[in-house]
Amino acid sequence: MSSGDIPASTFRAAAHRVADMIADYFERVGDYPVVPKIRPGDVAQALPAIPPEQPESMDRILDDYQRLVEPNTTHWNHPGFMAYFAITGSKPGVLGEALAAALNANAMVWKTGPAATELELRVCDWLRQMVGLPSEFQGHINDTASIGTLLALAAARHQAPGLDIRRRGMAGRSDLPALTIYASEEAHSSVDKAAVTLGIGTDNVRRLPTDDGFRMIPQALEQAIDEDRRAGRAPIAVVGTAGTTSTTSVDPLRAIGAICRRERLWFHVDAAYAGSAAICPEYRALMEGWEEADSVVLNPHKWLFTPVDCSVLLVRDPDRLKAAFSLVPEYLRTKEAGVTNLMDLGVQLGRRFRALKLWMVIRAFGAEGLRERIRHHGALAREFAERVRAEPGFELCAPVPFSVVCFRATSNASPEEQDRFNERLLDRVNAAGPVFLSHTKLRGRFVLRLAVGNLGTTAAHVETAWRLIREATVGMQ
Amino acid sequence: MSSGDIPASTFRAAAHRVADMIADYFERVGDYPVVPKIRPGDVAQALPAIPPEQPESMDRILDDYQRLVEPNTTHWNHPGFMAYFAITGSKPGVLGEALAAALNANAMVWKTGPAATELELRVCDWLRQMVGLPSEFQGHINDTASIGTLLALAAARHQAPGLDIRRRGMAGRSDLPALTIYASEEAHSSVDKAAVTLGIGTDNVRRLPTDDGFRMIPQALEQAIDEDRRAGRAPIAVVGTAGTTSTTSVDPLRAIGAICRRERLWFHVDAAYAGSAAICPEYRALMEGWEEADSVVLNPHKWLFTPVDCSVLLVRDPDRLKAAFSLVPEYLRTKEAGVTNLMDLGVQLGRRFRALKLWMVIRAFGAEGLRERIRHHGALAREFAERVRAEPGFELCAPVPFSVVCFRATSNASPEEQDRFNERLLDRVNAAGPVFLSHTKLRGRFVLRLAVGNLGTTAAHVETAWRLIREATVGMQ
Repeated sequence: MSSGDIPASTFRAAAHRVADMIADYFERVGDYPVVPKIRPGDVAQALPAIPPEQPESMDRILDDYQRLVEPNTTHWNHPGFMAYFAITGSKPGVLGEALAAALNANAMVWKTGPAATELELRVCDWLRQMVGLPSEFQGHINDTASIGTLLALAAARHQAPGLDIRRRGMAGRSDLPALTIYASEEAHSSVDKAAVTLGIGTDNVRRLPTDDGFRMIPQALEQAIDEDRRAGRAPIAVVGTAGTTSTTSVDPLRAIGAICRRERLWFHVDAAYAGSAAICPEYRALMEGWEEADSVVLNPHKWLFTPVDCSVLLVRDPDRLKAAFSLVPEYLRTKEAGVTNLMDLGVQLGRRFRALKLWMVIRAFGAEGLRERIRHHGALAREFAERVRAEPGFELCAPVPFSVVCFRATSNASPEEQDRFNERLLDRVNAAGPVFLSHTKLRGRFVLRLAVGNLGTTAAHVETAWRLIREATVGMQ
Repeated sequence: MSSGDIPASTFRAAAHRVADMIADYFERVGDYPVVPKIRPGDVAQALPAIPPEQPESMDRILDDYQRLVEPNTTHWNHPGFMAYFAITGSKPGVLGEALAAALNANAMVWKTGPAATELELRVCDWLRQMVGLPSEFQGHINDTASIGTLLALAAARHQAPGLDIRRRGMAGRSDLPALTIYASEEAHSSVDKAAVTLGIGTDNVRRLPTDDGFRMIPQALEQAIDEDRRAGRAPIAVVGTAGTTSTTSVDPLRAIGAICRRERLWFHVDAAYAGSAAICPEYRALMEGWEEADSVVLNPHKWLFTPVDCSVLLVRDPDRLKAAFSLVPEYLRTKEAGVTNLMDLGVQLGRRFRALKLWMVIRAFGAEGLRERIRHHGALAREFAERVRAEPGFELCAPVPFSVVCFRATSNASPEEQDRFNERLLDRVNAAGPVFLSHTKLRGRFVLRLAVGNLGTTAAHVETAWRLIREATVGMQ
């Protein structure tokens, strides 16, 4: 009867092969088309329908990886990846992930992961210092900002006075008004998903109008809160965004914070993308007022060169998260006094050792090195924006505070025809292979987005994107 | 101004060093004490309080890892780790994680991760076949069973007819009765956490009594449903457990399924631990009836040798999950028809390429090799149970259907004194270093748990545990 793991010598050889595979991948990723030219089902058809009964050699498995997986991947690590929020999992981060997988530590409580727990708290505090948030904030790592925002809103729901939703729930209660939360129309869909999950309901998410810079209008927030209160509903939280997904606009956080304080609402800041930029003082200035938040979510896996997943939730008073979530069954009780047991801070019991990669990333680049890379991306985006601005037949569609440019081709055609033109333009540019852009809609109009965030992206890649855009535009006329 | 990742040659050298570090770790992990002999704060004190401004060399970072992190870890990969559910992140799984981190693919939609999406669906179907669930089940991977159970219960809540909780929420509604869910008193705490998160409330989780084998009593379930209905509450779901956390008992799934069908309730099976054992027909027989579930959660990161995190949620009708959660903002719209966009199936938008490691684990061991290893663990647990049974002054506290043994030292002392004795016994055994056991409470009494699940665990390790237990017992008398 077989037992045990694969033999030590087999593993050592395979691990060295994988080391070279990864090093080779980083050297050649730019030669791939960013998005593979395959159709849905192509990969599935190449995979056996039934699982193997007998073991296969590591070399064969790694061969299949190189044949089937690597080339059929959308290459988020490609320097021409400029869609969504462009991201990079840097090389030091990859090494951190490999070591974390080898340790396989599950720091649900301190005792099951002392180094993982203490490193997580420390590295989150490094991040807090780097972005200039006050020392009372404590951070911990979740998989995604979707979860971070969910946890913050759950804490907001729990602290609503006298309701005891944790114990009594929300349904079938005559003493419980509808609960409402507030975010701008440009806030991320994770706010709605949190409202769905928490049983608040999408109808009770007030999507507030934005100004000409796509920022929440504080007067609209005040008015919405007032209307809800007068209708007998109970406002519980406001989500301000620092770096919205479409345009990277920053809500007026100072004004929102003041309203939240006055109205006794939880103030959550979704800085999933732009929060990383706050390590540079000039970008931090854009987030003025976020230091008054109750919680801030910030994703090093977006713009701090850390492989997915790594989302940091910084909370002013972690006891409020704990009050909402802590629940310790007997089999998880431990004796250590005064320790943080990370399972107490959220939904998920099991947790990977995600702090390791973030620790390695911060150390390998240094805070100053990280700042320089963020600034470089901002400069590339501004240069691209300048080209768009200077080119007849194109327009910028939003300010460029960080590293994302929203733009479109314009003409005398109807708005609908211009939308269709830009949609076809995007398809053509992306079909070429060297770059990958995405889109959004602003004020109902189809808009292209170019996002810089990859460590490998240089002026030449942005230049290529611009050349492909102009060539495609000419070719379509 | 610095830009770009660390140099290619630096990375290649560091990656090879990490390959050796991991290979070395797997060879020597058994020489560490399972739980490091440190106090809370020891690691934190060794870490700089402020982040480094300047970059540090990879060698220095890796040196610090070896000095500060590795020795201060609770070694889940230690063959003497027999606490909680003992787990192993096998070597092929570690390589899968390293490659996934290098690709950094975020398959929120098919287009952003074609290979990741299709491999995930395929490898989950392999798993479905291996455990013998019907072909209508579709699986996808979440980080934890806490999330899998949350998603299943959210789908149950959403399908409650006419309520439209997704849109309208649960608070402030006169048309909405209290919603109730059902699980045994031995079910996992994640059921309560899901009830907290979803706004159902812990008061509305009916923790049903169990029989002498720690299995839910179906009559008690029927009675509780009946009482709730008569009180005007709305039952929505039952969680049956296949492998409870304390004793690995399996609820009478067939009977529970029949009740759920008759009462039109969502039937969720928490098979996070024992589901993996269903790849062996003899263990699958214990789960008879689970094929009638609406959803089954099963963690390859528990007993299928896959590094955390990897939890598979198998759902009979994925459209019901999608109905509860799908929400597509413009910036995530893609054109491919008929594809699965994994973001539609849950809370989290971002998702790691977790399927890669599971694919590599299944291939490297083969279904038959995995069965043999599961059987080996079961045999080791039964041998240990036999020793306990044969030893005067000890007793088994629960049946041993899988690889976990619940036992305790007994005496003529009062129950409270016996509890304290067993608690001290556990501390002594764990303090020795070579093994790590955990505890639970059964019928209010303190009970020790020995769990086998590590690939490296052999008869000699179980023998060591038994020797330490007996020596400690003698030493305490």
